[in-house]
Amino acid sequence: MRDDLPGRPCSVAAALNLVGEKWALLAVREISFGNKRFDVIARNTGAPRDRLAARLRALESAGVVARRQYSDHPPRYEYELTQAGDELRAVLLALRTWGDKWAVDTPPSVFGHSCGHDLDTAVICRHCGEEVRSDELKVRVLTPGWTRRGPA
Amino acid sequence: MRDDLPGRPCSVAAALNLVGEKWALLAVREISFGNKRFDVIARNTGAPRDRLAARLRALESAGVVARRQYSDHPPRYEYELTQAGDELRAVLLALRTWGDKWAVDTPPSVFGHSCGHDLDTAVICRHCGEEVRSDELKVRVLTPGWTRRGPA
Repeated sequence: MRDDLPGRPCSVAAALNLVGEKWALLAVREISFGNKRFDVIARNTGAPRDRLAARLRALESAGVVARRQYSDHPPRYEYELTQAGDELRAVLLALRTWGDKWAVDTPPSVFGHSCGHDLDTAVICRHCGEEVRSDELKVRVLTPGWTRRGPA
Repeated sequence: MRDDLPGRPCSVAAALNLVGEKWALLAVREISFGNKRFDVIARNTGAPRDRLAARLRALESAGVVARRQYSDHPPRYEYELTQAGDELRAVLLALRTWGDKWAVDTPPSVFGHSCGHDLDTAVICRHCGEEVRSDELKVRVLTPGWTRRGPA
C-alpha cells in the first residue's frame, strides 16, 4: 500500500493515484486503440501537449505504459501498454458503459464483440455465476490497525 | 454529447468529464458505503475540504449525487447517490479490481458477495455469455462527420 495516500486504505484510491486523471485514462484509451505516437494521442484526446507529456511520464513510472524508440535520427518514441495498462481496458469499458448511459445523449461509438453482436456487458461473480448487484456487496477491511469510522 | 469536449467523441471522455477526478470518485465510494455526511466523507477520503466541497457541488450539478437537508438549525446536509451515482459502483468495482492487482502490495479490503464467497468478478457479453476479452473488441464510430485518424 502506498504510504502517501490519505483516507481509507483502499485499492480504488491507490488506483486513482496512479491513473485517476482524465488525460491519463484517455491516453491509455488511445494506446489501446493502437495509436502509439505522441502526436496522434494528443490529437485524439485533445489534451494540452505539456500535460499529456507529464501524464505519459507518470504512467511510465507507474508501469502502465512503456516507451519504445522507433527512430534514432531524430529520436522518436512510441508508447505501448504494459500488462497493467492492458488490464485498464476493463476500467475504460466500465466508464464507457456508464458514460453511454449518463454522460452523453447518444453513444458516439459502440464496441462490436467477436460473437457478432454489439457489446452489452454484465459483471458476474465467478463463484456463483450470478450477475453482481453492487448493493449486495459487503466490504471487509483486511488492513490491520484500520480504525476509521464507516461500515467497512 | 457535450460540445466542450476536445478530442475523439467518446463516452469515456464524457464520463471522465463528469466524474474523472480522484476526489469525486472517492466521494462516490464513501456515499456508496453509507457515509453521507461531509465530515465523514472528508475524513475517509482524505480530500482537502475545499476541493471536496467543490467536487460535491459538481457531482450534484452533474446529477450524480443529491443533497438532502437533515437539520434546520444549523442547516446541515447529507448526500445520496442518484441512480446515475449508484451505477458508478461498477466503475469503482473495476478500479478496485485493477488496483488490488496493480496499485497495492496487498488488497486492503475485499468485497464479500451474497453467495458467501469473496467477490471475484468476470465481465461477460450478454449475447453470447462468453467472458469479454478487451482485445477482441472493435470500436465502431456512430457520430456522423467524425473524421479523425485512428482505428475507430
